Amino acid sequence: MLLATSLVMLMTPGLAFFYGGLVGRKNVLTIMMQSFVSMGITTILWVTVGFSLCFSGDVGGIVGNLDNAFLMGIDLNTPFTADIPVFVFIAYQMMFAVITPALITGAFANRVRFPAYLAFLVAWLLMVYFPMVHMIWGGGILAQWGVLDFAGGIAVHAIAGMAALASVFFIGARKDKPTGPHSIPLVALGTGLLWFGWYGFNAGSELRVDEVTVTAFLNTDIAASFAAITWLVLSWTLEKKPKFLGLLTGAVAGLATITPAAGFVTPQAAMVIGMLAGLVCYFAVALKNKRHWDDALDVWGVHGVGGTVGVVSLGLFASLEVNSAGSNGLLYGDAGFFILEVVAVVIASVYAFVFTYLMLHVINMFTRVRVSDEDEISGLDGSEHGEEAYL
Amino acid sequence: MLLATSLVMLMTPGLAFFYGGLVGRKNVLTIMMQSFVSMGITTILWVTVGFSLCFSGDVGGIVGNLDNAFLMGIDLNTPFTADIPVFVFIAYQMMFAVITPALITGAFANRVRFPAYLAFLVAWLLMVYFPMVHMIWGGGILAQWGVLDFAGGIAVHAIAGMAALASVFFIGARKDKPTGPHSIPLVALGTGLLWFGWYGFNAGSELRVDEVTVTAFLNTDIAASFAAITWLVLSWTLEKKPKFLGLLTGAVAGLATITPAAGFVTPQAAMVIGMLAGLVCYFAVALKNKRHWDDALDVWGVHGVGGTVGVVSLGLFASLEVNSAGSNGLLYGDAGFFILEVVAVVIASVYAFVFTYLMLHVINMFTRVRVSDEDEISGLDGSEHGEEAYL
Amino acid sequence: MLLATSLVMLMTPGLAFFYGGLVGRKNVLTIMMQSFVSMGITTILWVTVGFSLCFSGDVGGIVGNLDNAFLMGIDLNTPFTADIPVFVFIAYQMMFAVITPALITGAFANRVRFPAYLAFLVAWLLMVYFPMVHMIWGGGILAQWGVLDFAGGIAVHAIAGMAALASVFFIGARKDKPTGPHSIPLVALGTGLLWFGWYGFNAGSELRVDEVTVTAFLNTDIAASFAAITWLVLSWTLEKKPKFLGLLTGAVAGLATITPAAGFVTPQAAMVIGMLAGLVCYFAVALKNKRHWDDALDVWGVHGVGGTVGVVSLGLFASLEVNSAGSNGLLYGDAGFFILEVVAVVIASVYAFVFTYLMLHVINMFTRVRVSDEDEISGLDGSEHGEEAYL
Repeated sequence: MLLATSLVMLMTPGLAFFYGGLVGRKNVLTIMMQSFVSMGITTILWVTVGFSLCFSGDVGGIVGNLDNAFLMGIDLNTPFTADIPVFVFIAYQMMFAVITPALITGAFANRVRFPAYLAFLVAWLLMVYFPMVHMIWGGGILAQWGVLDFAGGIAVHAIAGMAALASVFFIGARKDKPTGPHSIPLVALGTGLLWFGWYGFNAGSELRVDEVTVTAFLNTDIAASFAAITWLVLSWTLEKKPKFLGLLTGAVAGLATITPAAGFVTPQAAMVIGMLAGLVCYFAVALKNKRHWDDALDVWGVHGVGGTVGVVSLGLFASLEVNSAGSNGLLYGDAGFFILEVVAVVIASVYAFVFTYLMLHVINMFTRVRVSDEDEISGLDGSEHGEEAYL
Repeated sequence: MLLATSLVMLMTPGLAFFYGGLVGRKNVLTIMMQSFVSMGITTILWVTVGFSLCFSGDVGGIVGNLDNAFLMGIDLNTPFTADIPVFVFIAYQMMFAVITPALITGAFANRVRFPAYLAFLVAWLLMVYFPMVHMIWGGGILAQWGVLDFAGGIAVHAIAGMAALASVFFIGARKDKPTGPHSIPLVALGTGLLWFGWYGFNAGSELRVDEVTVTAFLNTDIAASFAAITWLVLSWTLEKKPKFLGLLTGAVAGLATITPAAGFVTPQAAMVIGMLAGLVCYFAVALKNKRHWDDALDVWGVHGVGGTVGVVSLGLFASLEVNSAGSNGLLYGDAGFFILEVVAVVIASVYAFVFTYLMLHVINMFTRVRVSDEDEISGLDGSEHGEEAYL
Repeated sequence: MLLATSLVMLMTPGLAFFYGGLVGRKNVLTIMMQSFVSMGITTILWVTVGFSLCFSGDVGGIVGNLDNAFLMGIDLNTPFTADIPVFVFIAYQMMFAVITPALITGAFANRVRFPAYLAFLVAWLLMVYFPMVHMIWGGGILAQWGVLDFAGGIAVHAIAGMAALASVFFIGARKDKPTGPHSIPLVALGTGLLWFGWYGFNAGSELRVDEVTVTAFLNTDIAASFAAITWLVLSWTLEKKPKFLGLLTGAVAGLATITPAAGFVTPQAAMVIGMLAGLVCYFAVALKNKRHWDDALDVWGVHGVGGTVGVVSLGLFASLEVNSAGSNGLLYGDAGFFILEVVAVVIASVYAFVFTYLMLHVINMFTRVRVSDEDEISGLDGSEHGEEAYL
């Protein structure tokens, strides 16, 4: 579990490289820093109040209480489950809290002021992420309804994707014509580290090593591969050339999509889910382009849509034979579970969209969210951070 | 084991960076994509037919059958060995299948069309890799003879190296004068990740944690270090300057060479094997340069020769005291085992060379393997993929 | 433990990227190679004599003997502790030996000849590192006094930092005006890998998985985060802009500082230690700048001062409730332990400083340590290694 936690930690630098490579040379540091600073800020917020708000007690089914603030009142020797010490659980969940808001940053690349981002980061964790985790994994209302989410299709990807879309609607499109990825090798490095870390993300979510863990591991790889090749074939057919970026983006879409289902479905279902991921996310991105939503690095199309497809797929393909602590899906005769999953992901998506939009509105009243046009054109690395990525 | 599997997975991106750094700026994406696409294609091939062809049943000692195609008929609860569940074994072996054909791509860098590469990838796995794995690790004919190969000196490195040489003979030399490595830091990153992942490759091959595992781990590091320093000293002496690339190449040669022997020999033998690796591979590369074989990134010299030296060393230095499930080598009195290992690596090398050459000939009848001269000069990233690595 | 060892191994490439990104384009390979070559040379030295000098027998409380030279006389089946086989311990400690001298190289960046560096590497390990490890972890005199050092605040960071300072005093400042970091993304990659590997460094030092391990893991992350944000806030306040490099440097300072204390203090103490790390190391670097000590990449300010602050903090915050094999610190009533830790870090620092200075003096009598002015201006990658980092 500690090693799974380490793997998940490495995903945040991986995300920084993935996003950093996709932007132009004058905004690399800005977006990489948005991920790295979450490792600092979110960790601090997590050990002071976040863990407690997610997993200590319950207030109205929505959020926890502050009994474990500053990790007080936690006896190290009391295991969280029969298998792992509470400190391991704290560290593991911390890594999820670190990466989830960082996912959103790809949407509003190249146009958000750093102080506003910090305010957004803290507010989003407090108002959206911590409540959502409590509701799904902390014994809150969705958990009570029986909603399943193996490693964060709802609690991570769907809400990050919808928050991304809300932020794009609030902030508006880039004015400076983007230059395209400044370093595809850096994108590949990010993808490699994300893929590597995702094993910890998905397989670690079982919190112990058993048949479910190994199934989740294998399913993760299968879905990523099927999605990557599906995306490659689509982009080859429809855009003439087999693009490396298509392969990489497809892999990430597959990883996001299998996340909620990894430990509940068969490898054969994971093959289908992977293909679905490539197909649906590819066309979601095409739709976004058509509508001119300036979600710069496709957070909505990949994570939002991918997470949602994954949750719906979980509702379809879940099988008690794979995981007796899970449920049967629609294909195995449980229509109620299917509807429940769909309802849950819709509620979470609406919640994330609305709160993110309102929150940005409020933050904007205190500190301007969007950079000036001059700063956008000169690049945020210089204007916001006074640094240059390459000399 | 799941974590060892993750480490091996990371080797393929590592290889992509290693190779990507070594080529010029206009062919970076092409060679990186050849590795990354194997993560997609080979995974799909593996879970559909590959695992079954390697490990299910036996047809004439050469290849398995299709009883486990699409992972059907596999009961998750039946362990593969007493120690690990079958899904873990499937995932672990899958990573080996992903990286082995990717190794070959370094040989024909900058001059192969992407569609032809995909055909080659699939054909090579079906015709060379899967049969070889079945013969050595899947209960096939070489296994029945008592051939040992700890982590793939024959089944990975020797056959990849010989396939590389065959592909160079078929495809011919580059016409566009190569520019040398466009980013040595990227090569260093690749080497670091390969070295890191190789612990999973070698130590994981014991499939459990015992004395053999830890010996394999330590031997891996020892051989890499001795080979790296041997190569450095040779290049310093013979080429005047202590080259960073020499150190890195030597490390990879040491890692490839110890692979078949890691779990069967003492650390003292690993020191000798490391020095042998540096020495023999260095002069193999020198020979290749003299003969003007255009194996662009020295796949034959490093992996082919390294794997072969490793198998021969295994025949010399193997000791039942290190691994009671192994054998004694020539130095411990078992000349028969030595001869057997030499025969096995020769058979596998000839098999890989001949089939690879013929296969490329057949593929070339359906789709041209080599790019046009104009495309070669303009660079494959643009002509094949319509992308640019750096902006 | 094998996986913790793998993580620590990855820190040395991580360090190479961290340092490589911080220097200019004409000295990248030189400093990266100084780290990578330690993976070769130090491993060879370790398995031949180093392990034995650290952990076999005792000569006057200062150093071990040569009974286990070439790993002879070690029975694989004799566990080193009740928990891990001796080969694992050898490999784990080897990774510490590899990275410690590599840390120093940041101080004298861009101005040391490669042959002199190799002599320094070997001499420093033999004269400073091996004795220090024996004294602290190998049953030597400091161990007998009851000095604690969880994962190397004294044995790694303090002595590397003081050696760095000594080397700067001996070698003198750069004449060629440095250009600033040539690739901050490379620095970020290095930081990500260092942070990732540090979990193995700190959590692995318990040598088994228990409550102390998980506390060490969590404390590592907490201290890094608090230090990173402290440094960011300080640099934002005092230097006007929130610098990415400040965030990254602060994280490394936090990691170095928590190292000696990770398994002996509470997470709440780790929060305080992290803030202290950011604060004290930041001002140490400012002091260094004011004094014009040309410690190019702040090895003294980050590792030397960080390690020392960590050891002092251990003397303050250690608690037997966290680790019954540890001690109580000053805040828990044990003033003797506090004084002991302070004395130990002072002795070690003085020892490292003096021996490093003298050693460089002696080496300089045999082979010139400093490059010529022309070579410094043309860059060491060309003059020392005949290579160019980027084409």
